[in-house]
Amino acid sequence: MSIIVQKYGGTSVADIDRIRAVAERVKRCRDRGDNLCVVLSAMAGTTNRLVGWVNELDAAGHDAAEHDMVVSTGEQVTIGLLAIALRTIGVPARSFTGWQAGIRTDGTHGKARIEGIDASAVRVAMDEGRVAIVAGFQGISPEGRVTTLGRGGSDTSAVALAAALEAERCDIFTDVDGVYTTDPRIVAKARKIEKITYEEMLEMASLGAKVLQTRSVAVAMQHGVRVQVLSSFDENPGTLVVSEDEIMEQNIVTGIAYSRDEARITVVGVKDRPGIAAAIFGPLSENGINVDMIVQSASRDGVSAALTFTVSRADLPRAERVLDEHRESIGFDRVIGDSSVAKVSVIGVGMRSHAGVAHTMFETLSRRGINIHAISTSEIKVSVLVTEDYTELAIRALHTAYGLDAA
Amino acid sequence: MSIIVQKYGGTSVADIDRIRAVAERVKRCRDRGDNLCVVLSAMAGTTNRLVGWVNELDAAGHDAAEHDMVVSTGEQVTIGLLAIALRTIGVPARSFTGWQAGIRTDGTHGKARIEGIDASAVRVAMDEGRVAIVAGFQGISPEGRVTTLGRGGSDTSAVALAAALEAERCDIFTDVDGVYTTDPRIVAKARKIEKITYEEMLEMASLGAKVLQTRSVAVAMQHGVRVQVLSSFDENPGTLVVSEDEIMEQNIVTGIAYSRDEARITVVGVKDRPGIAAAIFGPLSENGINVDMIVQSASRDGVSAALTFTVSRADLPRAERVLDEHRESIGFDRVIGDSSVAKVSVIGVGMRSHAGVAHTMFETLSRRGINIHAISTSEIKVSVLVTEDYTELAIRALHTAYGLDAA
Repeated sequence: MSIIVQKYGGTSVADIDRIRAVAERVKRCRDRGDNLCVVLSAMAGTTNRLVGWVNELDAAGHDAAEHDMVVSTGEQVTIGLLAIALRTIGVPARSFTGWQAGIRTDGTHGKARIEGIDASAVRVAMDEGRVAIVAGFQGISPEGRVTTLGRGGSDTSAVALAAALEAERCDIFTDVDGVYTTDPRIVAKARKIEKITYEEMLEMASLGAKVLQTRSVAVAMQHGVRVQVLSSFDENPGTLVVSEDEIMEQNIVTGIAYSRDEARITVVGVKDRPGIAAAIFGPLSENGINVDMIVQSASRDGVSAALTFTVSRADLPRAERVLDEHRESIGFDRVIGDSSVAKVSVIGVGMRSHAGVAHTMFETLSRRGINIHAISTSEIKVSVLVTEDYTELAIRALHTAYGLDAA
Repeated sequence: MSIIVQKYGGTSVADIDRIRAVAERVKRCRDRGDNLCVVLSAMAGTTNRLVGWVNELDAAGHDAAEHDMVVSTGEQVTIGLLAIALRTIGVPARSFTGWQAGIRTDGTHGKARIEGIDASAVRVAMDEGRVAIVAGFQGISPEGRVTTLGRGGSDTSAVALAAALEAERCDIFTDVDGVYTTDPRIVAKARKIEKITYEEMLEMASLGAKVLQTRSVAVAMQHGVRVQVLSSFDENPGTLVVSEDEIMEQNIVTGIAYSRDEARITVVGVKDRPGIAAAIFGPLSENGINVDMIVQSASRDGVSAALTFTVSRADLPRAERVLDEHRESIGFDRVIGDSSVAKVSVIGVGMRSHAGVAHTMFETLSRRGINIHAISTSEIKVSVLVTEDYTELAIRALHTAYGLDAA
């Protein structure tokens, strides 16, 4: 019997009826011969309610360990309920909290990293013919305290358990039925991707596609866990996230991602001297502000220049303040902030062996009159910064240009 | 610094404001120099909600282990929240689930018994100057699964922890301010008892006074834990439950308890033969029905007799059915069930050395025209069964007769 890990998110276990529906699906999979380990989130809304109480007492969040103690109860409720629901339809099951499932993490409460899993108790239950049901999103610290992995950490729990159990596959059930070539709300002709590589999925996730958490993809890639993203509301196959050698023929471009969580900062009248980048980006980094795309414009007079870069939209006011505080040491005329920009990215491992992807992108956008504010590239993606109003137009044009439209 | 264990029930932690109020009270006690271990229940209503979900899935309650997994989350929420509330007012604290606090139980899920407590982790936290906050009502089974102690088990958790920590005292905070000579809703002149012995409290609790759980009193008596019952809504001293030698002068009668949860069964026309009691009470016991008071009336003809006994009111229909099923083997004419009876008990360790307590009771009731259906006695209590309508009258008359009325 092949071991399958299944993960159901908060909307899939939002109430008793949905928990019953998950139990029925688990039963069908088991009847087909799968040996199942099921990872659950809390009921949709529960974690927010628990976090709300914590914040009501201490908005500053000084006590992350106690935050975890409170917030980790949400998953403990759903695993027990699913075990009961399974038993009432004749499927033996056993629930495990994070610590019972041997999920060891570091001590970074609120966003702990999984350090290792001793899945022996889970394995024993499965060997006895039970469905093992494990609380996602949580583990135990070296000090024996309950930790949480941070929002969306249940995906990571599931993938890490699949690695520890040497599972055939990790199925992530969600409210969409797979990974699409781009957001179907923007491009009606977007197609569901049958198979995508870890590297592409990693870029898709970090560039804005919200279907899988970046961390979980990284863990899957590291341990070679085959991941399937599929819907908990129908029975169709979803998207497989696998290693490159499982995919026979590669598209040059696999998908198009976008993010509106971008802001552009232009520092005008910068003295063109060695060390100027360090003078600007040092203080930002010390204040925990991540800088993404960077463009340095040469000046006409050879003395002063402009430096443009992007930060996440939420960081814009803080970044402007930090720069102002360091105006003396950096030396510049003024800072222009602009949060009406978006990042559009084309992604595909086929780019490695095919030239001309960036050229097609620039030409397509230019033909639609879309101005490019900044460019960044990696081996398997090209990102451009455009004015936010052009986001949908850019995505649709590129989707067609790379031959991604459904027939 | 003397160690004090405090236990707060569900109404004391029912919402964020009340949790803040508990934190303030804990801080005041700590400022006075107490080294505190605090045991909490779930927020009032939470356990019912969780049990409701479990019952919605499986009304028969086949999976007690998973029931415990779900239901034990309520206390985990309140301990984390109180730790946060304490920290925000400058009191270092650390929360412990049952398993983290080393509360080992047997594997009887839903009503587990505490087998032992390894309080070393709790002790370390307290030695570091922290308030230890422990989830009541829960522990861990020999198989490493979460257990619950059954309704009201938090009192037992608190007393057992007080024993393990060799605490000076275990303070049980509740919505009443102590143990009264009788129910103040019935007798306006009821007085708060300053000190009561374990034995008396045990009789009071098992005879109907709901302020402390019988089990917790038994554990306190076994380990010599001094227990105080007091109100979480004011700062008055409550009632101390202690061993006899701590009480200088004993009243003959300390309190009057009553229970309306009684039903009387009369088996008429029983053949008066050896083994008849076994023939009747055997089947009842096999069906889990507890029999309390028993009266055998001698028959006039020396052949047939009537046997009267009491069961809890909820057991009456089942007891009647069981007797009917065994009519042949027992041999009787008919069964008369009556659920309009109540049990009134006078309790006091002073009875051991004072005669006449029962006599005063019978005389007092007789003078008021109250008929006694059955009597049972122990070393420190006399109970009588009366028609339910006379309950209040009987209690008031006895309260006066034994000199318990407040001045």
